[in-house]
Amino acid sequence: MSDPVITLTTDFGEDSPYVAAMKGVILGINPSARIVDLSHQVPPQDLRHAAFFLAEAIPYFPQGVIHVVVVDPGVGSERALLGVTVNGHQLLVPDNGCWTLLARSGAPPRVIRLAESRYWLHSLSATFHGRDILAPVAAHLSLGVDPLQLGPAVTEWVKIEMPSPVLGVDQLIGEVVFVDHFGTLITNIPAEAFLALAHRPVRITVGDCDVPKRVRTYSEATPGSLVALISSAGMLEIAVVRGSAMQLTGSGSGSAVKVMAPGNSR
Amino acid sequence: MSDPVITLTTDFGEDSPYVAAMKGVILGINPSARIVDLSHQVPPQDLRHAAFFLAEAIPYFPQGVIHVVVVDPGVGSERALLGVTVNGHQLLVPDNGCWTLLARSGAPPRVIRLAESRYWLHSLSATFHGRDILAPVAAHLSLGVDPLQLGPAVTEWVKIEMPSPVLGVDQLIGEVVFVDHFGTLITNIPAEAFLALAHRPVRITVGDCDVPKRVRTYSEATPGSLVALISSAGMLEIAVVRGSAMQLTGSGSGSAVKVMAPGNSR
Amino acid sequence: MSDPVITLTTDFGEDSPYVAAMKGVILGINPSARIVDLSHQVPPQDLRHAAFFLAEAIPYFPQGVIHVVVVDPGVGSERALLGVTVNGHQLLVPDNGCWTLLARSGAPPRVIRLAESRYWLHSLSATFHGRDILAPVAAHLSLGVDPLQLGPAVTEWVKIEMPSPVLGVDQLIGEVVFVDHFGTLITNIPAEAFLALAHRPVRITVGDCDVPKRVRTYSEATPGSLVALISSAGMLEIAVVRGSAMQLTGSGSGSAVKVMAPGNSR
Repeated sequence: MSDPVITLTTDFGEDSPYVAAMKGVILGINPSARIVDLSHQVPPQDLRHAAFFLAEAIPYFPQGVIHVVVVDPGVGSERALLGVTVNGHQLLVPDNGCWTLLARSGAPPRVIRLAESRYWLHSLSATFHGRDILAPVAAHLSLGVDPLQLGPAVTEWVKIEMPSPVLGVDQLIGEVVFVDHFGTLITNIPAEAFLALAHRPVRITVGDCDVPKRVRTYSEATPGSLVALISSAGMLEIAVVRGSAMQLTGSGSGSAVKVMAPGNSR
Repeated sequence: MSDPVITLTTDFGEDSPYVAAMKGVILGINPSARIVDLSHQVPPQDLRHAAFFLAEAIPYFPQGVIHVVVVDPGVGSERALLGVTVNGHQLLVPDNGCWTLLARSGAPPRVIRLAESRYWLHSLSATFHGRDILAPVAAHLSLGVDPLQLGPAVTEWVKIEMPSPVLGVDQLIGEVVFVDHFGTLITNIPAEAFLALAHRPVRITVGDCDVPKRVRTYSEATPGSLVALISSAGMLEIAVVRGSAMQLTGSGSGSAVKVMAPGNSR
Repeated sequence: MSDPVITLTTDFGEDSPYVAAMKGVILGINPSARIVDLSHQVPPQDLRHAAFFLAEAIPYFPQGVIHVVVVDPGVGSERALLGVTVNGHQLLVPDNGCWTLLARSGAPPRVIRLAESRYWLHSLSATFHGRDILAPVAAHLSLGVDPLQLGPAVTEWVKIEMPSPVLGVDQLIGEVVFVDHFGTLITNIPAEAFLALAHRPVRITVGDCDVPKRVRTYSEATPGSLVALISSAGMLEIAVVRGSAMQLTGSGSGSAVKVMAPGNSR
């Protein structure tokens, strides 16, 4: 059997010792754990970014991997820390909704509140529960501790609010929900809705900018072109070929995106 | 028994091939080594940053892990390379003091000077001892080579100079010694000294700014507030809730921090 | 036998979920794979950067490691994906030449075109072949699949064009081909050519700047000095001691570099 895998997703960056300390805690409890970095570049305290990130990445992992997420604006407050099993994926997270996009489909998640302090570091800081609670709990889980030992089951938790698109017969109104490393603007308009409308010519706008071209892949347009296409996650995205749509359009997370059938002026 | 762990802490960034080459060298000598990145974002040649980073991270690791540190402004000079055992932790480092905060307590460190070139790459460059000496030595250590085989014991080494706070009866004068990824200003004033003074109301300043509020956790103040609290490492820190104290105050590493009891104007 | 190693080199950054999704795919197919990050900070779509990076890093790895490279401006176009064996190193790459500097010496590479879709994810996106094709193929290879099973052998592939230096008897004319994390300018002038000319005093320029000093290591000059020396990869490089030659000189990738023997004014 392979050594257990624990992944880390944080907003800690790599210039600070916080991620390193968590890795030390994990290896101190389970020297066989294999630690896999997912990201330490979630923008500070940006729960929507974290939620989108997890929704796009976690489903590709096999069951049995333990995912630790520390994007935690409420650290030290009364917010709970949770152990979540959702569609077979196991996460250890602050109760701030960052994981809840993973629960949009499939069986209802099973959630426990981390309460058994015997699985924590002995001395707790007020500001770093990632190191003091989540990392040691992950290491104990990877050693085979039953999740039910970690605390009581709960049936309520914070859910992240993501903007919903308005999907009409001849108009789709959504917004940018994620800007990726390339400056590509990923929207909340699903491919299915877009393709249903866009079998005829449509006008696409992001913020005040018209998106003049629609392509299947970046290579169908010349470098520098602003294009609309279906993202690798199955959503409408606005990109600049070999460039940054964020820079070209001045749009970003929250900017309005519209897809309009002909004759529909607004 | 688990595969041996080798950690890497450098100022190399990830855009350059230097870290990758070191990983290749390690795996070439010990294909079973598990490589764990601690940071490659130490600011270039910033030994104080490295020293603080290591002091906050290394103690959380179990014994037996081998830590390679390459922040090395003196590469190619006569400065030695060291194999250090300190409080059970094993480090391979340039002799520039970056590890010496780890020796403030506990048993005296055991230090050898890396001199046995049979554990190095055959061909040495003048500018990259991390790849040519430290990485192969780490890999050999992880295979079970006795540290005493690596070179002669030494009793002198460079010690890093960190500023000491002045801890008076009704005034504490320290400075910012580390700015973390969030822009939080971590000082050299220990929690104990601060709490001894701050059971009564105190005035706290960083640079020219008053720090108006003292909290136990970030969640006790509203977003944007400048607050003082005890860091996860047990030091006084100045933070902005969901923001950057560095940006708000204009302070950074080396800025003066004062804690004054009432009636003590300066 | 140790668990197989798969390395990842991409231009994806770490703020986006792309690298994480690839790691999930790999572990889903081979839970024993050890994933090693080489870089996710290749500048977007910068094939020359990727080519230089791979040429400096891959040779240090032992045979048997599988290297996945996703710097892929042509994703979704007709460009092929390749499985390459070059000097014993195994790479999975888009057919854009990023690996071809590794083939400058040694036996001719063996190259196959990835065509057997049974080793891919079932559902392919148009824009993310790293996740949908390269990652699963790497995982299958790491399980022992014969590379010849992945698709047909090919004898033609894209080769990267790197600028060649002009190496005269009393003048060397080259250019900056890589700027590293420290802002050091690495040229395409080999150490041998430089040393052959520079046993006598020479004039060295980068862009419009004279490089006043020649050293063997950074420590031979004072901080802030602009110096020429031989890089850890055996090329002439222009550096600022504890500073950035890119910032000081305003030069960067593509800037002209000249080494002139006395009496040779241009």
